Amino acid sequence: MADAPLLVGYWRSSAAYRVRIAVNLKGLTPRHAAVHLRKGEQRGADHLGLNPSGLVPVWQEEGFSLAQSLAIIEYLDETWPEPPLLPAAPRDRAVAREIALTVACDIHPLGNLRVLDKLTADWGAGAPARAAWARHWIGTGFTAIEARLAHSAGRYAVGDTPSLADICLVPQVYNARRFELDLTPYPMIRAADEAARAHPAFAAAAPEAQADAE
Amino acid sequence: MADAPLLVGYWRSSAAYRVRIAVNLKGLTPRHAAVHLRKGEQRGADHLGLNPSGLVPVWQEEGFSLAQSLAIIEYLDETWPEPPLLPAAPRDRAVAREIALTVACDIHPLGNLRVLDKLTADWGAGAPARAAWARHWIGTGFTAIEARLAHSAGRYAVGDTPSLADICLVPQVYNARRFELDLTPYPMIRAADEAARAHPAFAAAAPEAQADAE
Repeated sequence: MADAPLLVGYWRSSAAYRVRIAVNLKGLTPRHAAVHLRKGEQRGADHLGLNPSGLVPVWQEEGFSLAQSLAIIEYLDETWPEPPLLPAAPRDRAVAREIALTVACDIHPLGNLRVLDKLTADWGAGAPARAAWARHWIGTGFTAIEARLAHSAGRYAVGDTPSLADICLVPQVYNARRFELDLTPYPMIRAADEAARAHPAFAAAAPEAQADAE
Repeated sequence: MADAPLLVGYWRSSAAYRVRIAVNLKGLTPRHAAVHLRKGEQRGADHLGLNPSGLVPVWQEEGFSLAQSLAIIEYLDETWPEPPLLPAAPRDRAVAREIALTVACDIHPLGNLRVLDKLTADWGAGAPARAAWARHWIGTGFTAIEARLAHSAGRYAVGDTPSLADICLVPQVYNARRFELDLTPYPMIRAADEAARAHPAFAAAAPEAQADAE
């Protein structure tokens, strides 16, 4: 019998956090492995062999290794269709992906550890400047998402079922709190985040609940 | 009769370029509108009403407005299924999305105009430093994509049919050339880019072929 799939992550990586939520919603039980980002393990030969980008998460099955959290989640959704991670109606699916991609393209990459480290290396950015930079992009993206949620949200970000939108939003709100962003201007985001975090699949995926948490 | 859909873009935006390619592959003929990014039109009230993120592209239909290039492209693919923009086999679909997201999450957001402008505002980055920053992230992402293409590519990035992977890769290679990145280390990327640019749907979407090109 083939080994169970392996999910390579890191407790505080918000991209890995997304995939953990998706896996829990699907009721899947992959093996887990951790790559310690702050110790630079992602730049070691072992991990680069698995994922040349040096990022987490990576999803690994016999003969197949896949990077990019949203590619992994769409793959899980196509391979194990129940429960679906996207709404049924085409426009609702599109809005769920729009919210997810606003997090994954417009916010998260700009506050990533490697980017903050490069700001420090190139320009001498200290901790306050790094945090201010991250907050700037989170706030810009959250303003767009807040406007979208005013039309899309029910109990969750798009209607009354957890979707890819919540899967991306919750880890980004976690991240915003780490950078001490004032969330007062985003009541819709706070409500969606609170509802999703009460869901067992989200709770079990939280960074502090992981085996490699510090 | 309802108006034809409207695609709001900018000739040199690589995210808008992606959607133009997808639209051409599908044989769709939306109306086009341009928002002049270098003149700051994306921060005007008209555009912010359409897309609160202030970014392009935006896809607009009667009663529905959608941002995020990859959300738009997946929506087009689900709404007008022929020809498909993703391969049929689940693992191949996943790899096409992985390549697309490596561009859309790990490369493109970091070299975007608004990010380069913030490097200048915060740290006084001049033109050479802006270009070096952009090249750094393009090179890092291209290294990962080059390794993936060694296994996935046929005539195009994933097999012998143009897919979402090519739709994202070609505009990023265009961008890499603007920033004068040496493409010598990426022969697989250069081959995929060259094959795709020879396709009429890609050629008609090129920045220099747009009505608002300067």
